[in-house]
Amino acid sequence: MDSEERAVRDLHSIWIDAVNAGDLERLLSLMADDVVFLNPGQEPFGRDGFAVHFQTAHQRARFQCVSVLTEVVVVGDVAYARSRDSLSVTPIAGGETAWLRGHRLTVYRRQSGGRWLLARDAHTLAPSAG
Amino acid sequence: MDSEERAVRDLHSIWIDAVNAGDLERLLSLMADDVVFLNPGQEPFGRDGFAVHFQTAHQRARFQCVSVLTEVVVVGDVAYARSRDSLSVTPIAGGETAWLRGHRLTVYRRQSGGRWLLARDAHTLAPSAG
Repeated sequence: MDSEERAVRDLHSIWIDAVNAGDLERLLSLMADDVVFLNPGQEPFGRDGFAVHFQTAHQRARFQCVSVLTEVVVVGDVAYARSRDSLSVTPIAGGETAWLRGHRLTVYRRQSGGRWLLARDAHTLAPSAG
Repeated sequence: MDSEERAVRDLHSIWIDAVNAGDLERLLSLMADDVVFLNPGQEPFGRDGFAVHFQTAHQRARFQCVSVLTEVVVVGDVAYARSRDSLSVTPIAGGETAWLRGHRLTVYRRQSGGRWLLARDAHTLAPSAG
């Protein structure tokens, strides 16, 4: 594995840790200015939309995401990766934990300074039995 | 727009025409050998899975897909594109036309001969009122 693939894999790992920690500031520092997220049943959103969705969700529930990379392909200053994700959602007000499972296709861009950022992300997560 | 972006846009257009024509052979000629498709609520599949899903679907219904590219980014031998798609599904046996709407994130790869092929595709289409 070369150093660029390692950098993308590290970014993926740091991203998931920040999701689970509810660390919005960290996540915003890991995404490109023009980032776009595609989500089933919603219109795509960028940084601002991500922040609103993330804060609203974390006010209502505790999240635990497990994401396993199934491939990372680096081609010059672009990388694309796939992962198999499962997400548990436990309402803070009480109630049953719900599960979502699915896959993600993510595009990363290497910045002029050499740092990788998440640029595009589409996921197919859907409700699933626990 | 440079010639590589034009080539990716042409490939997208030819792809959608082939979907609407039910032309599986054409579609298989436009995708990479290691292509992967991500679909909500399903496991990812490659060429063989695509062929089975496509043939089964076209035996049951007529499809009309409208796909509008919202961006095409070419970086060397990789391109990524987003599109806004709507798909009407009319059962051949009769019945109401159903609609799905959503977005796609697609990764294209330029082959050694210069030809572009579809390599990865994730969509978020969900049932929608007509």
